[in-house]
Formats: sequence, structure tokens, C-alpha cells
Amino acid sequence: MAWSPRRSAGRRLQLPLLCLLLQGATAILFAVFVRYNRETDAALWHWGNHSNADNEFYFRYPSFQDVHAMIFVGFGFLMVFLQRYGFSSVGFTFLLAAFALQWSTLIQGFFHSFRGGYILVGMESMINADFSAAAVLISFGAILGKTGPVQLLLMALLEVVLFGLNEFVLLSLLEVKDAGGSMTIHTFGAYFGLILSRVLYRPHLEKSKHRQGSTYHSDLFAMIGTIFLWIFWPSFNSAPTALGDGQPRTALNTYYSLAASTLSTFALSALVGGDGRLDMVHVQNAALAGGVVVGTSAEMMLTPFGALAAGFLAGAISTLGYKFVTPILESKLKVQDTCGVHNLHGMPGVLGALLGSLVAGLATSEAYGDGLESVFPLIAEGQRSATSQAMHQLFGLFVTLTFASVGGGLGGLLLRLPILDSPPDSQCYEDQIYWEVPGEHEHLAQGSQETETQA
Amino acid sequence: MAWSPRRSAGRRLQLPLLCLLLQGATAILFAVFVRYNRETDAALWHWGNHSNADNEFYFRYPSFQDVHAMIFVGFGFLMVFLQRYGFSSVGFTFLLAAFALQWSTLIQGFFHSFRGGYILVGMESMINADFSAAAVLISFGAILGKTGPVQLLLMALLEVVLFGLNEFVLLSLLEVKDAGGSMTIHTFGAYFGLILSRVLYRPHLEKSKHRQGSTYHSDLFAMIGTIFLWIFWPSFNSAPTALGDGQPRTALNTYYSLAASTLSTFALSALVGGDGRLDMVHVQNAALAGGVVVGTSAEMMLTPFGALAAGFLAGAISTLGYKFVTPILESKLKVQDTCGVHNLHGMPGVLGALLGSLVAGLATSEAYGDGLESVFPLIAEGQRSATSQAMHQLFGLFVTLTFASVGGGLGGLLLRLPILDSPPDSQCYEDQIYWEVPGEHEHLAQGSQETETQA
Amino acid sequence: MAWSPRRSAGRRLQLPLLCLLLQGATAILFAVFVRYNRETDAALWHWGNHSNADNEFYFRYPSFQDVHAMIFVGFGFLMVFLQRYGFSSVGFTFLLAAFALQWSTLIQGFFHSFRGGYILVGMESMINADFSAAAVLISFGAILGKTGPVQLLLMALLEVVLFGLNEFVLLSLLEVKDAGGSMTIHTFGAYFGLILSRVLYRPHLEKSKHRQGSTYHSDLFAMIGTIFLWIFWPSFNSAPTALGDGQPRTALNTYYSLAASTLSTFALSALVGGDGRLDMVHVQNAALAGGVVVGTSAEMMLTPFGALAAGFLAGAISTLGYKFVTPILESKLKVQDTCGVHNLHGMPGVLGALLGSLVAGLATSEAYGDGLESVFPLIAEGQRSATSQAMHQLFGLFVTLTFASVGGGLGGLLLRLPILDSPPDSQCYEDQIYWEVPGEHEHLAQGSQETETQA
Repeated sequence: MAWSPRRSAGRRLQLPLLCLLLQGATAILFAVFVRYNRETDAALWHWGNHSNADNEFYFRYPSFQDVHAMIFVGFGFLMVFLQRYGFSSVGFTFLLAAFALQWSTLIQGFFHSFRGGYILVGMESMINADFSAAAVLISFGAILGKTGPVQLLLMALLEVVLFGLNEFVLLSLLEVKDAGGSMTIHTFGAYFGLILSRVLYRPHLEKSKHRQGSTYHSDLFAMIGTIFLWIFWPSFNSAPTALGDGQPRTALNTYYSLAASTLSTFALSALVGGDGRLDMVHVQNAALAGGVVVGTSAEMMLTPFGALAAGFLAGAISTLGYKFVTPILESKLKVQDTCGVHNLHGMPGVLGALLGSLVAGLATSEAYGDGLESVFPLIAEGQRSATSQAMHQLFGLFVTLTFASVGGGLGGLLLRLPILDSPPDSQCYEDQIYWEVPGEHEHLAQGSQETETQA
Repeated sequence: MAWSPRRSAGRRLQLPLLCLLLQGATAILFAVFVRYNRETDAALWHWGNHSNADNEFYFRYPSFQDVHAMIFVGFGFLMVFLQRYGFSSVGFTFLLAAFALQWSTLIQGFFHSFRGGYILVGMESMINADFSAAAVLISFGAILGKTGPVQLLLMALLEVVLFGLNEFVLLSLLEVKDAGGSMTIHTFGAYFGLILSRVLYRPHLEKSKHRQGSTYHSDLFAMIGTIFLWIFWPSFNSAPTALGDGQPRTALNTYYSLAASTLSTFALSALVGGDGRLDMVHVQNAALAGGVVVGTSAEMMLTPFGALAAGFLAGAISTLGYKFVTPILESKLKVQDTCGVHNLHGMPGVLGALLGSLVAGLATSEAYGDGLESVFPLIAEGQRSATSQAMHQLFGLFVTLTFASVGGGLGGLLLRLPILDSPPDSQCYEDQIYWEVPGEHEHLAQGSQETETQA
Repeated sequence: MAWSPRRSAGRRLQLPLLCLLLQGATAILFAVFVRYNRETDAALWHWGNHSNADNEFYFRYPSFQDVHAMIFVGFGFLMVFLQRYGFSSVGFTFLLAAFALQWSTLIQGFFHSFRGGYILVGMESMINADFSAAAVLISFGAILGKTGPVQLLLMALLEVVLFGLNEFVLLSLLEVKDAGGSMTIHTFGAYFGLILSRVLYRPHLEKSKHRQGSTYHSDLFAMIGTIFLWIFWPSFNSAPTALGDGQPRTALNTYYSLAASTLSTFALSALVGGDGRLDMVHVQNAALAGGVVVGTSAEMMLTPFGALAAGFLAGAISTLGYKFVTPILESKLKVQDTCGVHNLHGMPGVLGALLGSLVAGLATSEAYGDGLESVFPLIAEGQRSATSQAMHQLFGLFVTLTFASVGGGLGGLLLRLPILDSPPDSQCYEDQIYWEVPGEHEHLAQGSQETETQA
């Protein structure tokens, strides 16, 4: 290791101290502010007249567990594709998400469920906390391999606050619909990460080029992540939607959108691939764009055809993004996007916001009947026209892009603090800086000796 | 690559064009025919008097998600055991199932839920569409490694139609019970694939023999598939059964049947293994036979003992099949069955059909009480005796074998079209024909250079 | 292989015969004793007046499926970390758990649901049977790599009986609360396995030292196990708790406890690690201690802060255990604990029992309201004070440690029978003794030739 002893000593204590500080502060804030909500508290639940079957738990917990699997298994393993960064990918996902869900309980709680001086937690807050962690992990994807765990925790600390604020502006102030988070989660997380990556631009990243690829088995590990994200995405989009028809409609639309994005991904991947061959990067990522693109509109009367069309378009755009946009982002805009989150979350997220605006603008009381109240309460109550709702949706996208850009910029400045644990250019995408790595790995790591000495 | 430039160019466009064509046609048919059903549509659901908790979603969605995991994680990874065919196994599973579930929505919809000119979709149609994909993936298992993605999509196009037709004859015309699909899914999928493999018989497949084995890690990846299939099989069999007692009884019977097939698999594997050692192929596959064998009877009053006995028998037969039947199938009947679907789905499926007939024949109004109506409505209403139901069940098996054989034959003729993307004998079980494979794989692929030049 | 032909022949038949014997005996006992319970039986369920939605299945099945995934995916893959013992880890987990859940149906049934000469089975018995399998797998972790499958099945045969007896004493006689099993599952399973490992102490285990480590990819496989255990643990602890507020409160407390144990694990791992680096062993295991430590108290009014504090402490103690306690256990107490179950299940289990006693002792009718009845029925009915309940909880811990120690001792004596399939010291942690291993593995197994000849 080429780290000087002094920096090593600093690094040795930075991560433990930051973890302890963040966990300690969170615990104290929990002690002061966080309480069980009515459906989770023994005394409150048993007060009043209702059946146990009425408890929200039975309507949302299975979906929550699917979301939970997506955050930790899905995101974690999707990023294992790098040949020498598997421990960090799955390990830092674990650390970041475990912190973000606690911190987000506080932030989102202040914005959404602050009652009588207390933040009330239960099934919905758990789903929302996991959603916040998803945004953090999307940003992580943009800077994967180029940042240390201390940097990442600081990013999460900042991002969760801005995520909560943006979400509050959209859902509570603008009363925009965005159940599956095309805007609040995907667009926000992607552009936050991309701007942050721009600020952290490394002109000499080619020194770690040889570690930036995948291996046969690391690609198979990544497919575990892909498939778990894919199968559970219907639960992701439907977890927070209205009970009754809202949840099944959202799940069904997402199901078909993903199926279509899978076919368009295979089509485009073979079309643009060398010799007509398929590219695992496309399959691992672009096939998921169908879930992103209906994040806003899946709870609406999108129609099954609409879901197929949206998914098809998203898969195609995402695949073309990997082929043509990512290289330009790096060469022209100096944005190094390790996982291609611009293709999976950025463009499909923006597209999803536009689609949501369109479908909202087409809402009629014929199509929704008495169900209009639960999807567009302001339209049902006559406070907004469908067109006005569509305009609000568009404005929500603008707000999100603003928050994400400013936040990502601030995050980048924060992460550039020289005392942090940023790896040198020659040691990017490398587990050994942060992890004890078993010896067998050595034989894969040809040439690591040389790169280390020049660091 | 030994592909001539002309064929390469053809291949380059075949897969993209077929994907685009299939997806485009499906989308147009969706636009014309597919609508949300009552429980998924905003206007329809809010019309009438019921609670949100009555929505079918809350009774079936968790089981659907388990089935969904089985299709994409279970089948996908189970087939990753081949050392150089992991991308194709998990990738083509992804592509095939994503197409099959859309196409099956249309086919099954025409047969089962065509109302007023529209196909109505919701939770049940999603479960059924995934079931149809399962049959396609079972057939895929028989020809794994010997067919290209264009061939596979054409197979799915044909098989989904015949699957839907056979299912319609059994469930709607013959009024046969087959919730977990011992007949409609396992027997149909297996014999369709086996006959198809027979038509595609390759006398010189030994040219790819060196790639037909597994590696240590590919076997562990395959175990991911096995275990996810195993744990979620109770949900597979119970997903479409009657609400109330039907679902828990089906799940419980499947749970015990699988446990017993696991023990008999280990017993028989060690008994027939060289030096008393266990064989991963048996554990990966035969331990699942307990799920197949109760596919018809698990919703009936099979009794917990009956479940254990059935599972035990299925695990034993399946293991012995791998040892003794598969070699004979290849040498005498010229059926090359890559995954041994005859052992996992074929024989246990037929056995499950026979068991279902037996248990149906033993049905009495004492054993089922008022529950007879939901399991055997025709017996409860006096339109059929138990013996007559048993005979219908048997006839259902006969119909299934007929449809599967004719369909597999037709499928084989279709897939033999010389313009398709069939790999040469020396390039079977090889990802590199269809995928960009990362360089590290090269060092595993000793001798690939030579085999390629002789192709 | 250095096994003499005679031992080989014995070994060849031992495993098949034991599997057949155990499965045969279990099936006969099922035929005599096991019947569907009211919610699973067609006749019983349809007798009386209730809606299908009242069936317990809809309240507990999704949680059961999560538990089922933890047992087979979680435990199975967590133990795959050993470089040459992956087949055995996941395979023997499969075999042991498939047997234990059947056997436990009988044992727990006799103790808990024996009515009119019959054991009644349904959703709750399935959850409990899986819980019993969890205890067996925890003990397996202590002796992983040092025992053959025949030994393991005999251990399960004994352990399930003692598990059922201990559970009966705690839950039915002492009326102790322990929904998530800090005592009955984790403490019992850990100390049973540790005492058993002590009796099987191998002074010359260093002969297999070179196989005791992990490889890069075996560590990633193990992370699959870790993450599935982590995400589904809220379901594990809440699966058997009271309907209504009990399940969401238990799930929420477990969720936060696990998040905190993850942060303390990362903090302590970096603090004690060489050069400040993180250790995968800690992340794979200690991050889970938060689930263990709230196994007793999560259903109580622990408060979200209490959950964070408990998880934090458990993660820290567990990590420190791996660093400082495990080496002492081996060198001073001659306890060789392959997976470190003392750190993950032993110490956090005892801590969880103490925490449960504390939280029970603090129970007031203000905090629980009318919900006191469902958490502490004896306190609600005035038969016990909170302090008395706390004392009973403590006594439950004492009883558990006694049963575990005596049982582990007996188990050790049983497993030392020389006719069993114990591997020689030089062949521990090695799949090839029990499994056909594909050839590619050979090149990893440098030096295996030598070790085999000296065995």
C-alpha cells in the first residue's frame, strides 16, 4: 500500500468514528423524537374499535419486504459486476442503506409525520425510509469505485436531507403524484450522483482502467441483483399507492412495462453490439428501465398498452444511452458514471416524469369513476383541472432537477475535502484499500503490485 | 468465430428484428384487446359496495411474487450450472419469460377471460401468464445450449399457444383439477421439450462435450436457482387455488412433499454414486420433484402422510432417472436432454397426474364436507362421481401428452429452418456465440480457439 | 482418497440407509398422528361461520415464506464462505433442514398441538418447524467442516427433541415470552453446538488449516446468505407474534436493531482491523446480531430507540467476539467454532434474553394499554407482576443453557461413535469426501494430492 503512515492512521479512525458518531446522534434523536404510530403501538392500537385485520401491516408488509430485498440484494449485487470491487459494492451498499434508512426516518418524519412533537413510525415510514436509501444507492452507482466509505456516508448524510426536502416540496406542497418515484427517487438520485461525479472528475482515471471491467462470474453475481430488482419492481411502485384498486393496477402496469423493456433491451443490444452479440451491461441495467419509467404513472389509468409502450421506449433509450451517451458524458462533459445511472435512472426517470405529466393531463372522471379521488384528489374535488395537475407534475420535475443539481454540487465540494478517504487514481475500483481480501484473489489481481507502488 | 460473414450479418439482424416484431405485435394486440379487470380498474372497482380489503390483490399478490421469483431467479439460475453458458442460461430465461408472459396474456385471455370483446387482466392473469412462462422454460431446459435466442423465441411463440389450448381443454372442457400444473405445466413443458429435442437430435454433439460439465462455482450458482424454486414451490402450487382452506392446504402439502423428496434424493444419490458420494446434479434437480408430483393433488385432501409418500417417491424416481434413464434416452431414443427435464418434470409430472387421479377418485363428502364445492364442484353438485372425476383426470393426462408431442414435433420442424441461429455442433453450450464475454473467461476456455476453427 | 475400502463401503450405505430410515419412520408417524388443522382442512374450515379472509394463512404466510428463505438461502449460503466446502454447506443445510422440519412437526406437535390423539398442522406449525430447523443449523455452524452428513442427521434427531422440550418448558410451563427465539433458538442452538464441538475437539485440526479460509467469490456467495438473513429477519421475529399491533411492532423493532448493528459492525471491524481495513467475516456475521438480540423483546414496547441501542451493542459485542473471544475459545477452552456462532448467536442470544427480561420487568399497563393482554397475558390478568415475569424470563435463560449444554454433551458423545462418517483431521472443510466435485475445482485445490495421501 502506498498510503503514507500518517494518512493510514487517519483513515483507520475516520470510518469507525464517523459510524459511531452518526449512529450515536441518530439514536439520541430517536430517543427524543421517534414513537410508534397507532398501528404499531400496543396501547394506541387497542384503543378504539377495529379488527386486527384492519392493520396496515397486512396490506403493505409483503410489498415492503420486496422493496427491502431490492435495496439490499438488488442494488448491492447489481454493482458487484466490477472484477475487484465486489466486497465494496455489496458491503458499502449495506452500510449506506443501513444508515440512510435511520437518518431518513428522522428527516422524512419531520416533513411527513411530525405530530405533537413526535415522529410517528410504522409500515409507511419503513417503506419511505427504504425509498430514500434507494436514491442514495443510485447516486452511489455514479461514483462507484472512486470514493471511500467515509465519503459515501457524508454523501448519504447530505443527500437524505435534500431528498426529504425535495419529496416534501413535490408531494406535500405541489401535490404532485409520484408513488414509484420516477422523479423523487430516480431522477433525483441519478442527477445528484452525476453532478457529484462531475465535481469529483478524475482526469487520470485510466490508471485504474484494467480494473473497470467485469469477469464471467462477477457478471453472474450482478445478474442476481438485476433479477431481484426486476421481479420485485411491481412491489416497489405499488408499495405506497392507494389500497384497493391502486396497488394491483400499479403492480400490473409495472409488470408489463418491465417485460417490454426487456425485449427492447435485447433487441437494441444485439443491434448495436459488435457482430450482433448481446452485451451483459445492457441486460443487467437497461432491462430495468421499464420499472423506472412508470414510477409516476403506474398508479394512474395508464392502460396495459401504455405500460408496454413506455417500457419498450425506456429499454431502448437506456440501451442506446450505454452505447452512445455514456462515452460522450465522460469525454465531453467530464462526468464519469461507473454504473451508467444516467441510462438506467436518469433518462428513464425524466421520461417517466414526462409520461406521468401526460397521463395526469389525460385524466377524466369517466376513466377513473369514483376512483379519481384516490389517485387525483385535487381533480376529484374540483380544485385542479387535469391540465393543471399535468403542469404541476412538470414543475415537480423541474424542482427535482434543481434540488438534485445543487445537492450534487454541494456533495461534490464536501467529498473533495482532502482529509477524506478518497482512493488515488491508480487504486480505484479496488477492494484491497478498504477490505481484508482473501489470498486467492491475489492471482486475479495481476499487476496490482506495480500500480500500488506508483500510487 | 467460424460463422461466415453472410450468416453473421443475418444473425445480427434476426434477433433484433424478431424482438421488435414480437413486441410490436403484442403491443398492438394489447391496445385492441387488453383491459384492466374489475379489481384493477379505478372506475370499476369503485363501483359497487365492498371494502378495499376484499381486493383479490391481498389474497394472491404475495404468492404471485414468489412465483415470479421462481420463474426468473429459480429457472434462470438453475440452468447456470453449465461452465460456459451462464450468460445464456440466465439471459435467455429472462428474454423468453418476458416475452412468454405477454404473449400468454393474450392467448390465455382469449381462452379464459374474454368478455365483451376484451381480455380482462389482473392478479389471476399475471399468475397464469407466469405459469405459461414456466412451461416454456421447462422445454428450454431440454434443449439448453443447443439453440439460439431466435429459435427459442419461435419456440415460445408456438408453445404458449399450445399451452393455452391444452390448458383450456383440461380446465374448461374436461373440468380437470390441476392447480399446480403437474399436467398442464410440467408434463406439457417436459414432453414438448423432449420431442423437440428429439427432432433437433445432433449426432455429433460430443464435439462440445468438454463444455457440458459444471465448475465448482457454476454449481453453486445453480444451487441459488434450486433453493429459490424449492422454498417458493408451496406458493406456486397454492397461488391459483381456492381462497380459505384451499391455499394453506396446498402450501402445506407441497412443503412436506418437497422435504421428503429432498431426503430420498440424498439417499438415492449416495446409493448410486461412485464411492457413495453425492452428486450435485441430483440435489439441484431431483430434490424439487416433490413440488412437481403434488401439482395436481396438493389442493385435495391428500393428507400430510400422502404428501410425504408422494414426495419421497418422486425424489427417488427422479434421482434414478438421472442415473439410468437419461443415458438410455440419449443412446437409444436419441433424445438429448441437457437439464434432465424428463427426470425433474416429465416422470414426476406424469406421476403427479396419476396421483391426482387417484386422490380425486377417493374424494368423499365426509372428507371434504362443505369444502367439496370448492375443490370438486361437479362432484358436489352431483354431476360427476368421484370415479368419473378420476377418469377425466386420466384423460387430461392423455390429452396433455398428445398436445405436447404434436407441439414438440411441430416446434422441432420450425426450429430446424436453416436460416435460424442454431450453433454448430462444436459451439454448443458456449456463451461467446451470442454474448460479449469478458476477457477473464478466456483463461477458463482452454482450447476454445481450436474448436472454433474446426467449426 | 485415503479412505480404506472397508470404511468406504460402510460410508456408502450409512447415509442412504439413515435417510431412508428417518424418512420412513417419519412418514409412518405422520400417517398415525398428523392431521390438518381447522384452517387447512376442507371439511373443518367450511364448518362454522367465517369469511375466507379470516384464515390465518393470509396473516402469516408471507412471513412464513420469508422465514423459509432465511433457513434455506440464508443459513445455506452464509456458510458457503469456506473455499472448498460450498457443496457441503448449502447441501447439508438443505438435507438437515428438510429432515428437521418434518421431525419437528412431530416433536413440537406432541408438545403444543396434540388434540384427541392427533397432531394438528397448519401455518403456525410450519413456522415453528422452520424455527426448529434454524436451531439445528446454528449448531451446524459450530461444527461446520468437521462432521459428515450421517453425524449431522443424528445431531438433528437429538437436537430437535431437546429443542422441543426446552421450548415447551419455556413457553408452556414457565410462560416466558420469546417470539423470535433469543433463548429457544439462538442461545439453545449456539451452546448446543459449542458444547458438541468441545466434545469433538480435534487437537490436530491445523492439518486442514489451508482450507479454512475463504476466496473472493466464496465470500460473495456468503454475502448472499447474510443479506437474505438480514432483510427477512423482521419477518422471523414477527412471524409468530400476536396479530394486530404485535406483528408490525416486532418487525419495526427488528428493522432498526439490524440497521444499528450494521453500523456498529462496520465501526468496530475497521477499528480492530489491520491497517483499519474491514473484515468480511464481521460484516457477514456481526451485522446480523441485531436480529438475534431483539428476538425476545421486539414484540414488547422496546421503543425504536431501544431497538437501536440493543442492535448497536449486539453488533459491537459480536465483532469484538470474532476478534478476541473466538481465539480464546479455541486455545483455552478447546472449542473450535467454525462459523463463530458464539459471536453471532451465543452472546447476542444471551444478551437478548437479558434485554427481554429487562423490558418485561418494565412493563406497565400505561405503556401497553389493552394490548397488555396479548403480550403479557399473565400480567394483564393479575397473575404475575412485571418483576415476576422478568424473573421467569431469566429462569428461562438458565433452563435453556442447561438443556443446551446437556444436549450438546450427549450429542457429542453420540457423534463420537467411531463407525460414523467423521472426516480425518487432514480432510476437514473438504467437499470431495462427500461429493462428486467437478474437475475445474482441482486447479484451486493445490496440494490436495499430498494431504490426501497422508490422511
